Amino acid sequence: MVRAVYAGTFDPLTNGHLDVIKRAAKLVDELIVLVANNALKVHKFTTEERIQMIKNALKDAPKIKVDSTNGLIVNYAQEHDIKIMFRGLRNIQDYEYEYSLSEYNANINPNVETVLLFPSRNNHFVSSSAIKELVYHNVDISLYIPKENIELVKKKLSL
Amino acid sequence: MVRAVYAGTFDPLTNGHLDVIKRAAKLVDELIVLVANNALKVHKFTTEERIQMIKNALKDAPKIKVDSTNGLIVNYAQEHDIKIMFRGLRNIQDYEYEYSLSEYNANINPNVETVLLFPSRNNHFVSSSAIKELVYHNVDISLYIPKENIELVKKKLSL
Amino acid sequence: MVRAVYAGTFDPLTNGHLDVIKRAAKLVDELIVLVANNALKVHKFTTEERIQMIKNALKDAPKIKVDSTNGLIVNYAQEHDIKIMFRGLRNIQDYEYEYSLSEYNANINPNVETVLLFPSRNNHFVSSSAIKELVYHNVDISLYIPKENIELVKKKLSL
Amino acid sequence: MVRAVYAGTFDPLTNGHLDVIKRAAKLVDELIVLVANNALKVHKFTTEERIQMIKNALKDAPKIKVDSTNGLIVNYAQEHDIKIMFRGLRNIQDYEYEYSLSEYNANINPNVETVLLFPSRNNHFVSSSAIKELVYHNVDISLYIPKENIELVKKKLSL
Amino acid sequence: MVRAVYAGTFDPLTNGHLDVIKRAAKLVDELIVLVANNALKVHKFTTEERIQMIKNALKDAPKIKVDSTNGLIVNYAQEHDIKIMFRGLRNIQDYEYEYSLSEYNANINPNVETVLLFPSRNNHFVSSSAIKELVYHNVDISLYIPKENIELVKKKLSL
Amino acid sequence: MVRAVYAGTFDPLTNGHLDVIKRAAKLVDELIVLVANNALKVHKFTTEERIQMIKNALKDAPKIKVDSTNGLIVNYAQEHDIKIMFRGLRNIQDYEYEYSLSEYNANINPNVETVLLFPSRNNHFVSSSAIKELVYHNVDISLYIPKENIELVKKKLSL
Repeated sequence: MVRAVYAGTFDPLTNGHLDVIKRAAKLVDELIVLVANNALKVHKFTTEERIQMIKNALKDAPKIKVDSTNGLIVNYAQEHDIKIMFRGLRNIQDYEYEYSLSEYNANINPNVETVLLFPSRNNHFVSSSAIKELVYHNVDISLYIPKENIELVKKKLSL
Repeated sequence: MVRAVYAGTFDPLTNGHLDVIKRAAKLVDELIVLVANNALKVHKFTTEERIQMIKNALKDAPKIKVDSTNGLIVNYAQEHDIKIMFRGLRNIQDYEYEYSLSEYNANINPNVETVLLFPSRNNHFVSSSAIKELVYHNVDISLYIPKENIELVKKKLSL
Repeated sequence: MVRAVYAGTFDPLTNGHLDVIKRAAKLVDELIVLVANNALKVHKFTTEERIQMIKNALKDAPKIKVDSTNGLIVNYAQEHDIKIMFRGLRNIQDYEYEYSLSEYNANINPNVETVLLFPSRNNHFVSSSAIKELVYHNVDISLYIPKENIELVKKKLSL
Repeated sequence: MVRAVYAGTFDPLTNGHLDVIKRAAKLVDELIVLVANNALKVHKFTTEERIQMIKNALKDAPKIKVDSTNGLIVNYAQEHDIKIMFRGLRNIQDYEYEYSLSEYNANINPNVETVLLFPSRNNHFVSSSAIKELVYHNVDISLYIPKENIELVKKKLSL
Repeated sequence: MVRAVYAGTFDPLTNGHLDVIKRAAKLVDELIVLVANNALKVHKFTTEERIQMIKNALKDAPKIKVDSTNGLIVNYAQEHDIKIMFRGLRNIQDYEYEYSLSEYNANINPNVETVLLFPSRNNHFVSSSAIKELVYHNVDISLYIPKENIELVKKKLSL
Repeated sequence: MVRAVYAGTFDPLTNGHLDVIKRAAKLVDELIVLVANNALKVHKFTTEERIQMIKNALKDAPKIKVDSTNGLIVNYAQEHDIKIMFRGLRNIQDYEYEYSLSEYNANINPNVETVLLFPSRNNHFVSSSAIKELVYHNVDISLYIPKENIELVKKKLSL
């Protein structure tokens, strides 16, 4: 059985993330969507909210599990017998970041592979960090955020 | 069962290709290494030679099959019930080429996913097209070409 | 009155070109779509065919004229009282090419401005050079080529 | 009549901005230079100072108006019957940022076009954010800042 | 005699820095490794600690001196009769940053040259900023930090 | 004594090359400008013409020698006790090419360093390959070609 992880801060989950999740899930036997807490960053949503947003958007997806970690993704992978870390690749900036990260990870555990997917065309430019500014300016975010989560996202980011 | 393809012209097969093949094979149930003939390019090695070079380098790899096609890779994938097309991603130029290719392919068949791997560090810069110049200048190619194929590669590229 | 030119080899005209043409035309009083013959390249379509393909695709566009040149676009602009050369910008490779070209042009005539547009999302990856390979493999090109020209493009590129 | 906007934080206005303003103004009937307040950033100069710096540098430019907004530029454009948002494009990092921004804006209002200009050669590397460090180290900033504003910029950034 | 400087914040010194230092030193008569304090950033290590880490790692290198500055590197170079500022170039992001910096520096003093080296393969992705996160997650940093400094780095970054 | 090489096809020598030559020469004790014949390319100028163009442009430069090779530059360096191979770095495409080349060269001889210089601002976009098209269109090439060589370049490229 091939088990994979797709990790992120999902702060908040976007349709770009969701697109990668759905496409990655088709390629493996089990996909764990992993809410990763980055101790060096302040997150806008709690871990619980971020897990809930993923569950809301994925309700009928039997191959997909949701979990969270305060540790390194590559260590989580090893502990859970995971061979693949999926990553989305939107642009050159992502490319450079992902390449560096993959090298650090390969030094930690060469048996866990970094595997990259291009987000689909309508999501190629979408980032969690832009959503806050869209909400601030009262722009419709329904193109970027799963419909189940729009009210929560607007409420939290308007604070 | 997840079946994948890793296609290329392999003109000739490099250690960069071999690294991607071995790592990709671990992630799926079956990997087909596909010698793709590009009708708009002149290849230095015959299809048979390119198939043979791959077989030479892979002799004890039960999950891996070798095949060839004159058609599109995405069509080959559909005909053989393949969900994943693996691609190596060495640099920005590869990134841009692969992104365009993935979009054409997604229009042809959205059910076959483009999945990208970074070649490992020692192969990040290796390309088939550089090998000819190395042979011309009588540089040792054993860092770049599987040892089983070095004599053939030197002989053919010296002509 | 602001007059602009959008030049290319259009070998053949793609929906990416057509998208830039239509959007550029809205921004100026007159847009000349200029078939530029590059003396150092072999074109697959004759100048007449390329002009005709543009006219076919644009039939009801009063602000747009079609012309051709064997000279430099920046010189054509000067001779026709044109202030703007529109260019499409699809990716990093285009960026680097366009930047160099703009510098040569600014040295020839600083009064003609290079003005860049991003092709719209569905055309961001489309290039004339890919069309030949699609036709060779009998792929449906109707997503990439204006419908009026599909038969001509298939016929010429199949030869 | 074609009306355009060139927006920025102008914190402070550089000669790179001024170059784009002057070249953009030649291409349209009216250009509005728009001081955009980004609610998520702290600006070093007040809105009034930034407006004044632009006016100082442009004193005899009849086609150019200066204004400010706390809202989105694309919304300002719609309210003021503006078809073109000019943007400067200095490098790959700008390219990626501008491309994402243009996609969000096209979703908000597809009738307002993002139009890009390369800054001229001597300004290709100039950024407002570098000016603060130059002032800190007491470097002559007269190559980068319009002469009318140098004293104000030095005074404010030395605080 | 050709004297050169290799400056950085070295916060902390990595094996990537050390690799560039050793290779640069072979190319000149004297190399000054310069701890540059950036007044706009908070450093994790004191100037003294950073100087000491460099000295620890370089103990038997007669051509290399270590110094520090609160000023601009290009000004330091001029005051010390230095013709070359060495810089490491790891990726596209570095390329763009270094290019801008070199232009500002060329305006300040065109007689001091920016000279770039590619870090060697095993250090191409290493950055000081990643080390803090590795220490936080208790990852072995001995691949990235000179062995003489590992205890100090772990101690300071764990605070 | 530090001896360096700056190699190229110089087909023809541009002011961009000349700028790098002059700046590189200041950094070393001896610089050899090396006309490299690429056996896989057709050159427009003979080796003798390319040597002569360099000598014409450099007439009073005592530290600079001109030579040619049919072999690899890194091998030439080793045979002539050269520690540095200078390369110009104009853009991202150059960056990727130079990085690959430096890796092949480091495998051949790790004692010869690849050292990169940014061409100065007015030459950042200049390439030998563009000159042919400029001559074809009868554009003034005196901004790009050393004045001593303009007649020869025009004559040869007009054939």
